[in-house]
Amino acid sequence: MQKAAIILSGCGVFDGAEINESVLTLLALERKEVQYQCFAPDIEQHHVVNHLTGEEMPESRNVLVESARITRGEVKPLEQLDAEQFDFLLIPGGFGVAKNLCDFAVRGADCEVNAQVLGKCRDFAQAGKAAGYMCIAPALLAQVYGKGVKGTIGHDKDTAEGLTQMGVEHIECDVENIVVDEVNKVVTTPAYMLAERIIEAATGIDKLVDKVVDLARG
Amino acid sequence: MQKAAIILSGCGVFDGAEINESVLTLLALERKEVQYQCFAPDIEQHHVVNHLTGEEMPESRNVLVESARITRGEVKPLEQLDAEQFDFLLIPGGFGVAKNLCDFAVRGADCEVNAQVLGKCRDFAQAGKAAGYMCIAPALLAQVYGKGVKGTIGHDKDTAEGLTQMGVEHIECDVENIVVDEVNKVVTTPAYMLAERIIEAATGIDKLVDKVVDLARG
Repeated sequence: MQKAAIILSGCGVFDGAEINESVLTLLALERKEVQYQCFAPDIEQHHVVNHLTGEEMPESRNVLVESARITRGEVKPLEQLDAEQFDFLLIPGGFGVAKNLCDFAVRGADCEVNAQVLGKCRDFAQAGKAAGYMCIAPALLAQVYGKGVKGTIGHDKDTAEGLTQMGVEHIECDVENIVVDEVNKVVTTPAYMLAERIIEAATGIDKLVDKVVDLARG
Repeated sequence: MQKAAIILSGCGVFDGAEINESVLTLLALERKEVQYQCFAPDIEQHHVVNHLTGEEMPESRNVLVESARITRGEVKPLEQLDAEQFDFLLIPGGFGVAKNLCDFAVRGADCEVNAQVLGKCRDFAQAGKAAGYMCIAPALLAQVYGKGVKGTIGHDKDTAEGLTQMGVEHIECDVENIVVDEVNKVVTTPAYMLAERIIEAATGIDKLVDKVVDLARG
């Protein structure tokens, strides 16, 4: 049985992991009979957003602790992720990726990736293991794989330009589809960069998980 | 096109709405091409639980504001729910139902239901409109429908006894199944009262949504 590692970035689209994408990812893995373990960095969130108003809230929350809401407590600190124990890696999107795992939301193409996140993602890349990056998570790709890695965030010009500046070969893609970099074994899908309904995100994520499972089988 | 109202109770199984159940409910509605609108009471949570450790956190959060995390902001205050505008009502579970919508988690069979929640649920009941209550949400049934309403929370003896004391006719049910009260047009499923995997909860919730849609068609 294959085993997947998932990196979450909080709980809630505007300051953490996109909840629908996270749940759909785990559901797709169960349907493929893949075991999984979620991880998240034990760090403070960039900030906390009131998801009703969109305004920043004067408080702090921890990425690992909030990620545990999505997984009913079943999440481990990212430092415990040992790539050798897993067949592939998946990263759902949400602003948490662009605010907590890296600072793309603030610095765009000049963004830095959290050192622990970068190290863990590179472990999968350097071991030649497959990975799937959803929504805005392809903002991590250039630092993980180097220039020329193929990926998509959908159609958004500014975001695509940011990725291109960092070295990603950006390929436009609709919400129900995926882009595959066969050399690096990386699959991407726009998910909520484009989705207007859960069912749209689900179609792309199901395809992504199917393809990553195939790539991991070799 | 049918239109469903959903009442959420926060964001996270231990102090709010169960996230998987909430997402699976909305996904099932989209698959059935049912329009939906989520609502939540604009009240403070009973408490905040660290989902990693299970311990209470020294802070407060608002049920409506946290529910907005699940729905990407698309949730309205419960006071705005007008049953006349909807074909049926759905309530996903999570401790939020038993802590924020009523106090069953604290007081068991002596529980009181939040007055606004009770009023809105009764609006659907009294209009003869269908409803689906998942997981621990059947703890609301006796107050909404009166004695003799049929429902399930799965197999848990103590919880079932609490419901029975309140006047629910409790019927044992496995996770992938539903209990239907044809007279009251109420459907229940154990979901995470029993589920060990998302896919198990999904099977029961899909059946619940299918049946509620049928009941609402008449």
